[in-house]
Amino acid sequence: MTVLEPTFHPRWARSVADLEPRPATGGGRAPISFAYGLPDPALFPTESLNAAADLVLRRHSDHALQYGAGQGLPQLISVLIERLNRAEGLALRPEECMITTGAGQAIAVVARALLDPGDTVLVETPAWPGALNAFRRCNARLVAVPVDAEGLDTVALEQTLETLAAAGTRPKLLYTVPNFQNPTGVTTTLARRQALLDLAQRYDLLILEDDAYRDLAFEGALPPSLFALDTDGRVLRTGTYSKILAAGLRLGWLLGPREVLPRLIALKDDGGTSPFTAYLAAAYSLAGELEPHIARLVDSYRRKRDVMLGALTRYFPKSVTWTVPAGGFFVWVTLPPGTDAADLLRAAREEGVDFLPGRSCFPDPADGTSHLRLAFSLPTPDQIEEGIKRLGGVLDAALG
Amino acid sequence: MTVLEPTFHPRWARSVADLEPRPATGGGRAPISFAYGLPDPALFPTESLNAAADLVLRRHSDHALQYGAGQGLPQLISVLIERLNRAEGLALRPEECMITTGAGQAIAVVARALLDPGDTVLVETPAWPGALNAFRRCNARLVAVPVDAEGLDTVALEQTLETLAAAGTRPKLLYTVPNFQNPTGVTTTLARRQALLDLAQRYDLLILEDDAYRDLAFEGALPPSLFALDTDGRVLRTGTYSKILAAGLRLGWLLGPREVLPRLIALKDDGGTSPFTAYLAAAYSLAGELEPHIARLVDSYRRKRDVMLGALTRYFPKSVTWTVPAGGFFVWVTLPPGTDAADLLRAAREEGVDFLPGRSCFPDPADGTSHLRLAFSLPTPDQIEEGIKRLGGVLDAALG
Repeated sequence: MTVLEPTFHPRWARSVADLEPRPATGGGRAPISFAYGLPDPALFPTESLNAAADLVLRRHSDHALQYGAGQGLPQLISVLIERLNRAEGLALRPEECMITTGAGQAIAVVARALLDPGDTVLVETPAWPGALNAFRRCNARLVAVPVDAEGLDTVALEQTLETLAAAGTRPKLLYTVPNFQNPTGVTTTLARRQALLDLAQRYDLLILEDDAYRDLAFEGALPPSLFALDTDGRVLRTGTYSKILAAGLRLGWLLGPREVLPRLIALKDDGGTSPFTAYLAAAYSLAGELEPHIARLVDSYRRKRDVMLGALTRYFPKSVTWTVPAGGFFVWVTLPPGTDAADLLRAAREEGVDFLPGRSCFPDPADGTSHLRLAFSLPTPDQIEEGIKRLGGVLDAALG
Repeated sequence: MTVLEPTFHPRWARSVADLEPRPATGGGRAPISFAYGLPDPALFPTESLNAAADLVLRRHSDHALQYGAGQGLPQLISVLIERLNRAEGLALRPEECMITTGAGQAIAVVARALLDPGDTVLVETPAWPGALNAFRRCNARLVAVPVDAEGLDTVALEQTLETLAAAGTRPKLLYTVPNFQNPTGVTTTLARRQALLDLAQRYDLLILEDDAYRDLAFEGALPPSLFALDTDGRVLRTGTYSKILAAGLRLGWLLGPREVLPRLIALKDDGGTSPFTAYLAAAYSLAGELEPHIARLVDSYRRKRDVMLGALTRYFPKSVTWTVPAGGFFVWVTLPPGTDAADLLRAAREEGVDFLPGRSCFPDPADGTSHLRLAFSLPTPDQIEEGIKRLGGVLDAALG
């Protein structure tokens, strides 16, 4: 598309032409992708962000285009904690919040602050591969704690903590996504959350609560977060604008005790999260755009989930099971024992469908072979229907 | 300022009001600050960036607001290496370049990739405190290599390398800013650059070349970079859009051998540098805006440097000396022996002037007491004149 729209000045002609996306190497049709938790670009609030950019650049460029504070833009922190306090009945103060360059940076900074090589980290399993990799980069020892239909299995956790204590090992940290977990879509029950906090107290454990999907709840209220239930400052909680506004802005946050945050801020290595994108998110939020936008996202992603669940029932073999998420982006599929999802991936790609083999969600990849993750966030409902149909054919052929 | 300009829709009223900068705690008049290398906000190309944002959000939001590649936006990498190849006669390919969230992230990632605790890093001294801190975060041992009027002292470097080799120590890395060095403003001569590369070859040393100020050259051509002179792939070079476009976009880059870059990309922990700000920089550059903008910056910063040098001559005591930078942001001041710049800072602040005590630029802070760094980039020429006059008064009083 090199035809200029009349509203662009001719000096922007090359920008318009040369910014077109590069075709994928190797050519060929893009697959229907269930592989990654990518937000749907059709839902990006482009016009409002453009108005916000205009406002920010005309009124606040002196600060938005300058270096900013390591903690993040104070105005965004205000808007953010006001929203969290209102929605969850919290009493957060600015000193308990830092803006990060995506939630991934928050997790990485916590890992670097707390972990020495060889330290033990308890990770819910299956888990988001990005978190596993952040802990691996610190040369931590990952110990799996299973997730079942009620979320993190606190009975198994207690046994693991006892075994570790008997061996003289104190884990530094437990990582969990209690809401619409990545990759299973499961939400941890209130009873399990309370049991987890009890164990954390008894075993002097810190918890890193990754709450990336909280706002994408399809059926009513969630239990309070671990951060909200915690009474003794042992929970750090991350969140992100990537799923509710725009991943390309690279904006996340970390909530934690005010005594801990300065140490974490000092470990950010990007010279402070972009003041410009932070101003955009703050201007957008202050205009009252965020809540109605999230309501639209919830409607759209709920519909996609429903289409996927319907298609799974219609097209997948009876020997295959899957989770029913009440929010978020993901369905977790379990194949009959002995089936390796990685083996199916090649056949699926030949049919123009992509997914994430479960093994990348396990501390020990050998444990996750008979699982796969399906993200319903990116494709259209029609693509979901078609993609699951094709994948059902691949499974039929493989499982005989 | 809560009065709405007519062009903002009323729904943006709160955004306009609540985004105003927060007054500094403690109140009081903001000082004339020579403390930090902040670009001058009056020189931000606000209108063109606004046009770029409009173009990007109307035409490329699907990709600009989505997650991006770890290496960075391919379109920005193309624009960037085309500019570097043209200006310096290089033959860079896209696989030799990664976009980073500021040059600071590039330095941090190189440090994390190469350094184990206790490893030795050679650092030009005085050095940019941000780089020293990145190496300290890796628990590296910092060994100072002096900088004099011709840049990095390669005779001293050779002696240091010999001493270290005799003790069985092989430094992993040498860090240097060859052009308009931060903090001294000094540029390393061509002969010294060649001597440095010879030593690097002989002692199997990697070089991290921080070239943040290259484009802000006030008087003609620079020697080729270490990266350009290098023949055996032992130089990594960083650059940044912070000084030539806008620090708030958080965009830098790293050039290096194609075999090395994937390992460094894997250590970025922010989920990829913002595709949105990368699209802005690419659109801005493709419109041909960058070169004339840099020419304006050079004119303005040259004038500020001249005002500062003139004022230093008029107002500073004869016992004080300083460097004469041919570009960049900084003048380095040397006080008579036995004077501690940190002691002067309190008196200066009472006079409404701020600077950076030299000790923060030294691996061992005790070595830098009689120096201070003056950045002429942020204040107006009138403020520079007035600030240096006040600082001269403080020095007169302190030095008797």
